[in-house]
Amino acid sequence: MSAPPLPEGYAFRAVQKSDYTNGYIETLKVLTTTGDISEAQFHNLVQHWETHSHIYKARAITDASGKIVATGMLVVEKKLIHSCGSVGHIEDIAVAKDQQGKQLGRILIVSLTALARDAGCYKVILDCSEHNKPFYEKCGYKHESCAMVVRL
Amino acid sequence: MSAPPLPEGYAFRAVQKSDYTNGYIETLKVLTTTGDISEAQFHNLVQHWETHSHIYKARAITDASGKIVATGMLVVEKKLIHSCGSVGHIEDIAVAKDQQGKQLGRILIVSLTALARDAGCYKVILDCSEHNKPFYEKCGYKHESCAMVVRL
Ligand SMILES: CC(C)(COP(=O)(O)OP(=O)(O)OC[C@H]1O[C@@H](n2cnc3c(N)ncnc32)[C@H](O)[C@@H]1OP(=O)(O)O)[C@@H](O)C(=O)NCCC(=O)NCCS
Ligand SMILES: CC(C)(COP(=O)(O)OP(=O)(O)OC[C@H]1O[C@@H](n2cnc3c(N)ncnc32)[C@H](O)[C@@H]1OP(=O)(O)O)[C@@H](O)C(=O)NCCC(=O)NCCS
Repeated sequence: MSAPPLPEGYAFRAVQKSDYTNGYIETLKVLTTTGDISEAQFHNLVQHWETHSHIYKARAITDASGKIVATGMLVVEKKLIHSCGSVGHIEDIAVAKDQQGKQLGRILIVSLTALARDAGCYKVILDCSEHNKPFYEKCGYKHESCAMVVRL
Repeated sequence: MSAPPLPEGYAFRAVQKSDYTNGYIETLKVLTTTGDISEAQFHNLVQHWETHSHIYKARAITDASGKIVATGMLVVEKKLIHSCGSVGHIEDIAVAKDQQGKQLGRILIVSLTALARDAGCYKVILDCSEHNKPFYEKCGYKHESCAMVVRL
């Protein structure tokens, strides 16, 4: 798997507490509802992710002005199977509406997958809609099984 | 969602360090290869799960003799979307060959889903083969999207 370089001035980096008003929440709204999140709630959440940084790897792509325009999460799960192997879960991939179609999505997936490899994962999994399947196939992923859900 | 009661003497409980030779690894072999796992590796893994017990909930069903005959993991992921909501991931469901068909699988799924509700999750997701879809449907799950994978 490979991806083109980021556009000039863009960067891939960890999400930080200072990103509260920096496009992170805004970008995630292309995915689903975020609800009202206070600055304190945001700080607590990023603190939780940072405290468990070997498990949660919340990442973002920033544009040339430093604003977040794409988001993604890698969760590294330690299992017993496959000789105490780890599996990466990619979650909450979102590219801001006006930045879609510039390869940022692909760069995000390739970068999170590389992070998973560095963390020793033997595979990475993610769920997507039928509509987005071709995008993930271009990122090297294959449709293997059924994603099941129950809402509580 | 509901499940019948466990058979007389059976119990649903957290996996413990003392389960190294108590059927946990053996049961997981119905799923896939476990590889050779030393007692020290097993202790380290259970220690990791226990240290992060708000994230990892490794559970088992024991038979009347106290031996593990079914296994399942719930991973609770804290997200930003849905007002800092949490999502449960069910992983590594296995019922020992000679104990299949006694509703232990269903009890496991219903119990892990209840744990997720108690942990405040707004949904629980899992991946399964086309072959096992009817089992998860009986447990209240619906096929919603595509599970994609890349092997590293
Ligand atoms: C889906 C999404 C992440 C893709 O990111 P993006 O930055 O727009 O996509 P990229 O520019 O990196 O696309 C890479 C390749 O995939 C293709 N592609 C992207 N989305 C596609 C789709 N839905 N169907 C078919 N092909 C698609 C692109 O055309 C491009 O192909 P090319 O390299 O041959 O030109 C983004 O559009 C998005 O955030 N959508 C809304 C939220 C969402 O659906 N998130 C995913 C939840 S599973
Ligand atoms: C799949 C598995 C977890 C089911 O557990 P189980 O204890 O054998 O199943 P249960 O007795 O709880 O079954 C509950 C119901 O689902 C049905 N069911 C179970 N597996 C089924 C299947 N593959 N197809 C259709 N129905 C199935 C049962 O017939 C039962 O129906 P009923 O209540 O109407 O009589 C178990 O067989 C297993 O570990 N298999 C091998 C490993 C595996 O595939 N794990 C899951 C990975 S996704």
